[in-house]
Amino acid sequence: MDMMDIIENYESVVRSYVRSFPTVFEKARGSYLYNTEGEAFLDFFAGASVMNYGHNHPELKKALLDYLSNDNVVHSLDMASVMRARFLETFHDRILKPRGMNHRVQFPGPTGTNAVESALKIARKATGRPGVVAFTNAFHGMTLGSLSVTGNQFKRDGAGVPLSYTESMPYDSYFGDDFDTIDYLEKMLQDGGSGVGHPSAVIVETVQAEGGVNVASGEWLRKLQDCCRRNDMLFMIDDIQTGNGRTGHYFSFEEFGLDPDVVTVSKSISGFGFPLSIVLVKPEYDIWEPGEHNGTFRGFNPAMVTAKRAIELFWSDDSFANEVQEKSKHVRARLAALVEKYPEAQGTVRGRGMMQAVAFENEDIAGAISQHCFKRNMIIETAGPNDEVLKLLPPLTTEMDDLDRGLDLIEESLRAVLADMGIGGHQPAANQ
Amino acid sequence: MDMMDIIENYESVVRSYVRSFPTVFEKARGSYLYNTEGEAFLDFFAGASVMNYGHNHPELKKALLDYLSNDNVVHSLDMASVMRARFLETFHDRILKPRGMNHRVQFPGPTGTNAVESALKIARKATGRPGVVAFTNAFHGMTLGSLSVTGNQFKRDGAGVPLSYTESMPYDSYFGDDFDTIDYLEKMLQDGGSGVGHPSAVIVETVQAEGGVNVASGEWLRKLQDCCRRNDMLFMIDDIQTGNGRTGHYFSFEEFGLDPDVVTVSKSISGFGFPLSIVLVKPEYDIWEPGEHNGTFRGFNPAMVTAKRAIELFWSDDSFANEVQEKSKHVRARLAALVEKYPEAQGTVRGRGMMQAVAFENEDIAGAISQHCFKRNMIIETAGPNDEVLKLLPPLTTEMDDLDRGLDLIEESLRAVLADMGIGGHQPAANQ
Amino acid sequence: MDMMDIIENYESVVRSYVRSFPTVFEKARGSYLYNTEGEAFLDFFAGASVMNYGHNHPELKKALLDYLSNDNVVHSLDMASVMRARFLETFHDRILKPRGMNHRVQFPGPTGTNAVESALKIARKATGRPGVVAFTNAFHGMTLGSLSVTGNQFKRDGAGVPLSYTESMPYDSYFGDDFDTIDYLEKMLQDGGSGVGHPSAVIVETVQAEGGVNVASGEWLRKLQDCCRRNDMLFMIDDIQTGNGRTGHYFSFEEFGLDPDVVTVSKSISGFGFPLSIVLVKPEYDIWEPGEHNGTFRGFNPAMVTAKRAIELFWSDDSFANEVQEKSKHVRARLAALVEKYPEAQGTVRGRGMMQAVAFENEDIAGAISQHCFKRNMIIETAGPNDEVLKLLPPLTTEMDDLDRGLDLIEESLRAVLADMGIGGHQPAANQ
Amino acid sequence: MDMMDIIENYESVVRSYVRSFPTVFEKARGSYLYNTEGEAFLDFFAGASVMNYGHNHPELKKALLDYLSNDNVVHSLDMASVMRARFLETFHDRILKPRGMNHRVQFPGPTGTNAVESALKIARKATGRPGVVAFTNAFHGMTLGSLSVTGNQFKRDGAGVPLSYTESMPYDSYFGDDFDTIDYLEKMLQDGGSGVGHPSAVIVETVQAEGGVNVASGEWLRKLQDCCRRNDMLFMIDDIQTGNGRTGHYFSFEEFGLDPDVVTVSKSISGFGFPLSIVLVKPEYDIWEPGEHNGTFRGFNPAMVTAKRAIELFWSDDSFANEVQEKSKHVRARLAALVEKYPEAQGTVRGRGMMQAVAFENEDIAGAISQHCFKRNMIIETAGPNDEVLKLLPPLTTEMDDLDRGLDLIEESLRAVLADMGIGGHQPAANQ
Repeated sequence: MDMMDIIENYESVVRSYVRSFPTVFEKARGSYLYNTEGEAFLDFFAGASVMNYGHNHPELKKALLDYLSNDNVVHSLDMASVMRARFLETFHDRILKPRGMNHRVQFPGPTGTNAVESALKIARKATGRPGVVAFTNAFHGMTLGSLSVTGNQFKRDGAGVPLSYTESMPYDSYFGDDFDTIDYLEKMLQDGGSGVGHPSAVIVETVQAEGGVNVASGEWLRKLQDCCRRNDMLFMIDDIQTGNGRTGHYFSFEEFGLDPDVVTVSKSISGFGFPLSIVLVKPEYDIWEPGEHNGTFRGFNPAMVTAKRAIELFWSDDSFANEVQEKSKHVRARLAALVEKYPEAQGTVRGRGMMQAVAFENEDIAGAISQHCFKRNMIIETAGPNDEVLKLLPPLTTEMDDLDRGLDLIEESLRAVLADMGIGGHQPAANQ
Repeated sequence: MDMMDIIENYESVVRSYVRSFPTVFEKARGSYLYNTEGEAFLDFFAGASVMNYGHNHPELKKALLDYLSNDNVVHSLDMASVMRARFLETFHDRILKPRGMNHRVQFPGPTGTNAVESALKIARKATGRPGVVAFTNAFHGMTLGSLSVTGNQFKRDGAGVPLSYTESMPYDSYFGDDFDTIDYLEKMLQDGGSGVGHPSAVIVETVQAEGGVNVASGEWLRKLQDCCRRNDMLFMIDDIQTGNGRTGHYFSFEEFGLDPDVVTVSKSISGFGFPLSIVLVKPEYDIWEPGEHNGTFRGFNPAMVTAKRAIELFWSDDSFANEVQEKSKHVRARLAALVEKYPEAQGTVRGRGMMQAVAFENEDIAGAISQHCFKRNMIIETAGPNDEVLKLLPPLTTEMDDLDRGLDLIEESLRAVLADMGIGGHQPAANQ
Repeated sequence: MDMMDIIENYESVVRSYVRSFPTVFEKARGSYLYNTEGEAFLDFFAGASVMNYGHNHPELKKALLDYLSNDNVVHSLDMASVMRARFLETFHDRILKPRGMNHRVQFPGPTGTNAVESALKIARKATGRPGVVAFTNAFHGMTLGSLSVTGNQFKRDGAGVPLSYTESMPYDSYFGDDFDTIDYLEKMLQDGGSGVGHPSAVIVETVQAEGGVNVASGEWLRKLQDCCRRNDMLFMIDDIQTGNGRTGHYFSFEEFGLDPDVVTVSKSISGFGFPLSIVLVKPEYDIWEPGEHNGTFRGFNPAMVTAKRAIELFWSDDSFANEVQEKSKHVRARLAALVEKYPEAQGTVRGRGMMQAVAFENEDIAGAISQHCFKRNMIIETAGPNDEVLKLLPPLTTEMDDLDRGLDLIEESLRAVLADMGIGGHQPAANQ
Repeated sequence: MDMMDIIENYESVVRSYVRSFPTVFEKARGSYLYNTEGEAFLDFFAGASVMNYGHNHPELKKALLDYLSNDNVVHSLDMASVMRARFLETFHDRILKPRGMNHRVQFPGPTGTNAVESALKIARKATGRPGVVAFTNAFHGMTLGSLSVTGNQFKRDGAGVPLSYTESMPYDSYFGDDFDTIDYLEKMLQDGGSGVGHPSAVIVETVQAEGGVNVASGEWLRKLQDCCRRNDMLFMIDDIQTGNGRTGHYFSFEEFGLDPDVVTVSKSISGFGFPLSIVLVKPEYDIWEPGEHNGTFRGFNPAMVTAKRAIELFWSDDSFANEVQEKSKHVRARLAALVEKYPEAQGTVRGRGMMQAVAFENEDIAGAISQHCFKRNMIIETAGPNDEVLKLLPPLTTEMDDLDRGLDLIEESLRAVLADMGIGGHQPAANQ
């Protein structure tokens, strides 16, 4: 049986990305994936922002191979290990301390949803109240707690049980620019008759990646933080997809001077695609009983090896952040030019840093572009409740030439899509 | 700051095992862990049964290093990869097919709790009913869905919200040998006035490891399966800790001729301590919509490398299983002799295969033995609602000499504990 | 349109008793109902034990007409009224005080389910814990809280939402006489791994009327009360159907020397069929904020008029109780003789006081007897999860002759049913 | 013990109105209550709109006494009775039919909360979906289902369990006049990522009486009905307090041409303060199984006697409605003049029909007026989340002179309150 047949026959029908990108990948390096035919695919998805430093980064790989070759301990639950201590020290010294953060680090299990589940438990334990405020089009994970703060109805329905103890509130600009959604939240919280009660916490993404690359302004986030303080609720930021430099700083919230009580981090933290997840929690809320939350894989040392090395390489000074910010401006400018050049596509550019996107009025366009890009050996995904948003998530280390190459392919694909759809007088391209 | 100080200062207070085994581990090989002083610790815990094939098994390590050295793709979400196909093929050919199982393989995320959350969703979707039957002293995980089928109240309270849609039913022999708990379950299911309703599924561990090494008999499990069939409920086995050879066969249920609809597998499946988890689901229940359950780290290829290699090494024929069964008999016999020799300890031997345990009437004894063993450079854990059970989980590959060494240390520790506690006229040993 | 047509056309299809007893009632007096044709029906149902003192008792009617004729206040919410004070005084002086009870009286709204909802709130507020233990085949009402402690699945399914925060435990003798269900409950409560947690209260009926006239022994109830005390849970008795003399004493629990923390009373308390309901709560648990539970009809004075008068008439000394106990013995003896005479009917007698019943192995018999009785102008209902129990609930004031007449009709009907079904060689009666 | 002492000693501390109006009432006639001293109190509360036709209306009393004097059946569960048929016929012929409504009538139990619980069950059964949309500051009752659609947090907290399966949405003008709350609801419903999902129904009061006499416009209600139709949700109106003529028509919604799928009616339906409640449900949603919802007191015939007679007396033609509308205009005009005359009171007039109110900026004023009115022998209540609204609910039959007398007392009390509070230069009145 060939490999694609094996997958179709033996794997559950729940598989999804393989349906959009039907080729068998074998190798990966930097911003490229390679299939078994040796064809190179430009990667503008980066494993859902897990590969911010590119695939198989040589320095990270070196550290990993050194570690693994020498019989260092791989799996140590939450016992002490050299690597755990080294990672904690590096994370403290180079990430937390310079940013004035005194948060403690919890290892809640190796995935983002473990971190979100822990954050929810922390808020509920710290306040003794069950409710949590989440936002329209939020995405926080697939386990029952995380799903309860996720907006997507298709995913929610998958639970098979009602999802409770959460309030879904309108995100920034959800109902137009004239409607201040924090004022609305505040009124609901202050009004003893609103039915909302007194939640324990707010959990928020600074940019809603899965939800459609919806960007919250710094002002809105600050107002939200103030609202939390005023109403005695924990302010919790889910930085799983937006953290690790994706928006141009290590944390997505630091440029706004925010001071979240709890932060969840995962995806690119290992820098090498190894499962790792942490929860940052202020000491005053770090009131767990020992073992009150646990999990088997919360001591996966190899992931800490690359995580520590990635911090040393990229976050010892500002140079990498500056570089990401420069690239971000370039991508943003090119996308702005693109939507201006093709007004018939009715696209709007959104995003922060290296998470840029184009939302299309016609909900079929983004998916069609993604398919056309794939034909041109490029991986790019869609987002939003109706997949109406084309989302650019290249590795942060992508060279300028490759960024331009990707943007060219997007334009070429857009043109092809417009032609396919007969929009704006475009003709089918010869090479379709 | 020394490494233990770093951990105490920077890591969350939720950490637990490090409190029982306060040393910093650096290396690991086979059945031994080594701390930074170079001291060897005999490992009778195996990372909570994650290291069934021992630490840093050379053949697995070789396959892993080969894979990682050659820029093979590490992280591929649920896109097709060479390694995904190869793992699926091997798992199908060497595990499922020889056992007459036609289950599909789902990658639900890399940890056990991801698998359990998926299993619960499957049962609810397949039946359209929310309820799930779980058992007293069950342990299925820490995310909200898995926690709802977990018995431990301390863990449940950590949720901070009521845990719903589950029925806790008495496990095998829960209420003594004369009370048939399946008859009780059946009556509750058949009686339209019982308040239990019509659950979607039963989820069960064949041995409750965390719950105190409570062993279900084959007869009880078969009766439970029949009960599920009769009552149109899915029969789901959580083989996360009991699978991968721990009980003497690949699956813990195969010797009883059971035919579960859904099986969760994790922990030792990668064989190397790498996070990996799968759900096995019969095709008739594999009715997911694409992407209805997802998760970032469900395409962690390096874990599939060692998982495939482990199957090839250990499960290509019966020799390894036979060896484990032999060792199990030896351990069991020595424990039986031990409790007979020290009747004043009021111990009872329990377990299956290489998951053997001694339950003590006096709830302080097991923990005290564990501490004494640690002083003697051995890692062994307790289990049960009051930590009253000493649980032996050595790697399955542990040499007979090391097994005996561990059993000697347990006896020595028991004697020391009895002396400390002034039980049965034992005198404090000179070397305490 | 004739009256039955009006009902069939204009009333919701949810109506039920009218389907079993399809005639239009007009008058009622003592133990008889009369339809529009003037036919008298012997009433062995008493409006589900609402008419314990018979229909239109002349003394109660007199007090009521006096009250209503003189423009006394009918509806006063929970403002003070003469009648409210007079009822409270009488209830205190003649019911509570002689029984050594210092409970406070809450008016939770005029129906039993209002009382149960209040009781649940009291337990949860007093303990800060949400869980409540209820029993298999319990019936406590149809609103969402009461339904959550009701066993009947058909009724529960009507909720349309999962019913949570309750644990359904086996009632007395639920699993045979050898299985002590309180020991089971105790073990589940003591075991930190049982999944049951720490409920706030137990709510129990001393006889489960709707559930099939299942009788709890005094020993079992005392053990249950002890279990509550030991486990810091409120002991709550739902005496809605069993109270007001039905079992031979004012409260069903007094002969066992029980001391419940909360008691719900309704149905026959007004004695005249007027909606009234009270919750008795020990002062230490009467910790409501003013208005924390309210309801429009909690000051329905006419119901208090007859309630007060009924207490004066029937509960000023022991004579009525003694009389009920005498009648009960007679009914019980005749039923015992009946099942002995017709062993082929495989009936078992159950009950306490004037709530006696026959449970039949063949689940169709009880309903068929009820139908045959109706043909013979007698009203008698069935109970139990499968309507397999024939339930005798005549007014407590029913004359001995009428009791015998009813029992004769039951025997006649049983014989007819056995004949219809071809059981035991009975021949269809000529008058069928 | 005097009567007030009896109440204080024997009744639960949950009592509330008696604290605001501490006198013992004995008689009642028309718009007046009389205490044991024979003092008359002008009633601007009408038992929370239960006594729309005044206390002890002679015609209703006559019908009731006739019925009760002649041994007509009082309590008949849901068996057929003459009175049940007569009430259904009258309700159909004089209320439903002239308004083009073909709803079936369900008797869900005798109180408003029974009706709301039934309505919720109907919506959930008809759609198979658990969610229900309710509004900020809604009040629907105190049992667990009704409480879950009630906004008031103090009442909700009384539940002691999380209240689930409902979405609290902003009522008309909740967030100012520029923010269209139906557009907001519509967006939340249409957006697959909003987290709101697909509710089964909307339940709404046309005027939120308890919530502060918040008035929904006809346009808003029509838009809400359209939204329900478009989104396949039942449109359910709770007319318990607003129905029976309170707003100037029999139903509060008829003047807007609305066509609700389900309507709950209670409070004044019996017209005499007797507990009665009905649910009106369109035939297509009347899909109950027999007995799926039940309750003891759903056949309380005396309440049907007065209910039938009240319809005959007041709703056989338009004259009563017209009269109520005239009085309403008068009350409204006088309140408007009042707030204009005392701008320092910062009052705003709200209401529809004979449910008029003044909301005060200073949250203490309304309560203080109520207390001053009581000193002047008048009963009037407050409403709103902070009791900041003075609510006028006189019987609809109140004579114009008495209305004016009440309005004079309100003005006098307002003046006294302003003086007490030192607002706007008012001097304490001599007679305070």
